[in-house]
Amino acid sequence: MQPAQSLLLFGATGDLARRMLLPSLFGLDADGLLPKGLRIVATARSAHDDASFRAMAEAALRQVVEAERLKPELVARFLGRLRYVTLDASDPAQFNALAAVVDPARQPVAIFLSTAPSLFRATIAGLAASGLAGENARLALEKPLGSDLASSRDINDAVAEAFPESRTFRIDHYLGKETVQNLLALRFGNLLLEPLWNAQYIEHIQLTVSETVGLEGRIDYFDGTGSLRDMVQNHMLQLLALVAMEPPAQFDASAVRSEKVKVLRSLRRIGRDNAATHSVIGQYRPGAVAGMPVSGYVEELGRASDTETFVAIKAHVDNWRWKGVPFYMRTGKRMPSRQSEILIQFRAVPHSIFADRGAVVQPNKLVIRLQPEETIRLLMMTKQPGLDRDGVRLREVPLDLGTSAFADIRRRIAYERLLLDLVEGDPTLFVRRDEVEAQWEWIDAIRQGWAANAMTPRPYAAGTWGPSAAIALTERDGVTWRD
Amino acid sequence: MQPAQSLLLFGATGDLARRMLLPSLFGLDADGLLPKGLRIVATARSAHDDASFRAMAEAALRQVVEAERLKPELVARFLGRLRYVTLDASDPAQFNALAAVVDPARQPVAIFLSTAPSLFRATIAGLAASGLAGENARLALEKPLGSDLASSRDINDAVAEAFPESRTFRIDHYLGKETVQNLLALRFGNLLLEPLWNAQYIEHIQLTVSETVGLEGRIDYFDGTGSLRDMVQNHMLQLLALVAMEPPAQFDASAVRSEKVKVLRSLRRIGRDNAATHSVIGQYRPGAVAGMPVSGYVEELGRASDTETFVAIKAHVDNWRWKGVPFYMRTGKRMPSRQSEILIQFRAVPHSIFADRGAVVQPNKLVIRLQPEETIRLLMMTKQPGLDRDGVRLREVPLDLGTSAFADIRRRIAYERLLLDLVEGDPTLFVRRDEVEAQWEWIDAIRQGWAANAMTPRPYAAGTWGPSAAIALTERDGVTWRD
Repeated sequence: MQPAQSLLLFGATGDLARRMLLPSLFGLDADGLLPKGLRIVATARSAHDDASFRAMAEAALRQVVEAERLKPELVARFLGRLRYVTLDASDPAQFNALAAVVDPARQPVAIFLSTAPSLFRATIAGLAASGLAGENARLALEKPLGSDLASSRDINDAVAEAFPESRTFRIDHYLGKETVQNLLALRFGNLLLEPLWNAQYIEHIQLTVSETVGLEGRIDYFDGTGSLRDMVQNHMLQLLALVAMEPPAQFDASAVRSEKVKVLRSLRRIGRDNAATHSVIGQYRPGAVAGMPVSGYVEELGRASDTETFVAIKAHVDNWRWKGVPFYMRTGKRMPSRQSEILIQFRAVPHSIFADRGAVVQPNKLVIRLQPEETIRLLMMTKQPGLDRDGVRLREVPLDLGTSAFADIRRRIAYERLLLDLVEGDPTLFVRRDEVEAQWEWIDAIRQGWAANAMTPRPYAAGTWGPSAAIALTERDGVTWRD
Repeated sequence: MQPAQSLLLFGATGDLARRMLLPSLFGLDADGLLPKGLRIVATARSAHDDASFRAMAEAALRQVVEAERLKPELVARFLGRLRYVTLDASDPAQFNALAAVVDPARQPVAIFLSTAPSLFRATIAGLAASGLAGENARLALEKPLGSDLASSRDINDAVAEAFPESRTFRIDHYLGKETVQNLLALRFGNLLLEPLWNAQYIEHIQLTVSETVGLEGRIDYFDGTGSLRDMVQNHMLQLLALVAMEPPAQFDASAVRSEKVKVLRSLRRIGRDNAATHSVIGQYRPGAVAGMPVSGYVEELGRASDTETFVAIKAHVDNWRWKGVPFYMRTGKRMPSRQSEILIQFRAVPHSIFADRGAVVQPNKLVIRLQPEETIRLLMMTKQPGLDRDGVRLREVPLDLGTSAFADIRRRIAYERLLLDLVEGDPTLFVRRDEVEAQWEWIDAIRQGWAANAMTPRPYAAGTWGPSAAIALTERDGVTWRD
């Protein structure tokens, strides 16, 4: 694919654009990574002209980007790339004005849709009709892409009318994170891990994405959606797929995504028969986070609701590699700490030769942390220096496999990577349609299982790790969540 | 075995006693680790009384031990343990005087022989005749224990007349090193290494023990002995055995040493047929070490000599685990740097998924360094943070598995561990007779191979890594020595 000459941002005045997209594009531009003539055409319903949008963009940069990186000449160059077109996406006629601003010489176009899903269909039709969905145009979509398999198919069908799959870039911003990419480098750039990366050596895997925030401003979206669809369906299943997949033959879009989808299709179905034993849902009640009293979900919402703000799942990947290895997942709001983490728990050594010498041998762990900071740590046992008079003393030492060896390199926003891949046309780190649909299929069955078993969220106090049933979910297997 | 109540030091005025044994005993005593009433009876041919020996011992401590550790009350307590008996070991009658000093109430006795091997037989006879080789007495022997299998057997037979194997403690001070013991902790205290510790995942192993010094004061011993018998026969074969052995069932004297001897007996014989292709010997000529001109071996010695000051060997352990994995060993004097190191070179990943993205994937390495500092490093590939515009960049990151995580703990002399084990009666870290004999058997065959092929040392300039044939030895296999 040729690099894009124009980038169209739909929803350019929204929260995502101001917090992430514009700062990311500035970061790329400041480092000289954007194509020289790339023009960024911003659109939204709000009335702006180029000047007022640039003022808004500059204000957004000043809020997010460290002051020392905002060199005046760099800011000026970046703002000079910005154009603004006011557009009501529901009116097809308005797309012609947009197309006119995108100089035909500035094809191909990369398009980023960060608007309400209800506008997707109209926007795509408008793009197609106005000639903006040309042969090299590509379309990036930000979640939520549907609320179940059927609605996801609807959206994907609508997209497919104008953009073939090869030019459809579904964003899961977790895939833009350095540490997620480093997981692949570690797995496949070292001989040491892959031979151990299976049921023979791994006892279980934990995925935790915990937030301390509650509903905040997302009432409209979150209530009725819930944690399962907000977090598990996309981010957590993508992480699970990257952890569990077979080695792809190449690090490219086709090979990587084909391996991921195989994992997603191998997830053991959780439904009517086992939803009650393999999943736990919760909703937070008033409590305290970081010592501050906070309201319960219902109080925040202002009405009764059965939406889950916490979910824990015991999943299995039914293939040769992962036979019998539980993948415990949990995510929730109003947890004690903000933490996104993958724990690979290796089995204990089959026999401790030091048992008679009183040594305690902890099983090895690999801890991949995405939030609050990005780190990868391998926990290994080493001998504590000494004369071992009261037995051999072994101690767990954390080995830093992450990016802390590269302290001099600026940490980028995950969107920087994804926007640049979009502009340059590399879909490897975007989600393919078959993946999304495999994700929804698995998620829909869980929701049907909840309905069939009349499961409603169990209460948990804000500032705790969810309902006690979530603890029981793993403890029954002799496994403790890593908090 | 009961803790010793007396420690007899033969050769107590010698170099080893002053540099290592007395400072080690002081270190143990200062930390309260010696049995409360333990008396240290020193003997040698030199005329001393308790007072003059204590003065000599104190001077030795002041030369070796950091001043801040020499607290007056600790020094006084330690010197108070010392007695001195002048003794000509060749005169059996004199042992009665020694036995009289060792109060019978202070049995059992631990005896440390650090004398010329020519005195071993007389000393042992004297000990036995004077009642010092009683039921709980144990005898530690410092190398050299013979110069070939036959003379080693002679010594061992003489020892066995008074001390059964279970009470004979053959010292190889490399086994007292923290890092050597940590190698076992790493191999058997972690699940991660053992499944990879074999021919399927390890390409080759290198053992290097290089010295910058030349002959120095050791003319009498070294000339006619040579590097093979001085270094390979004991230290390097012990390291090889610890690296290559199967997991012992327990970390105890019987299990560990039985596994080591299996390795030593599995060493493929190098002799008449293959000594010329599997070993290289050298002798240093004048050159420069660290920028200072130094003489050649012959000039230092003052006469012609065929003694090798360098040896490189390509060895194999013929068992299931190590089929086809070369163990390259080299040791020499007047090398460019002082370095004792074991390199475990893992194989390359079978296929690089990043090859199309231009990434260079270095095979993993485990580097166990005993000198000049003790460190263990695992070299792994990790993703260099960045947007990977010119391909995926992987970088080798050294993970520190050694003792640097324990910076607060004092590094002990290897002899501290061994002396304390001797006093307490734990022979795990001492060398059993069958090991020594297996070592000699393999070494003798090599020397016969040299003789049969009329091999004489090749010259190398002091300050280089030995004769070029040593480079060729590995390069023929596509392997480069790690310098």
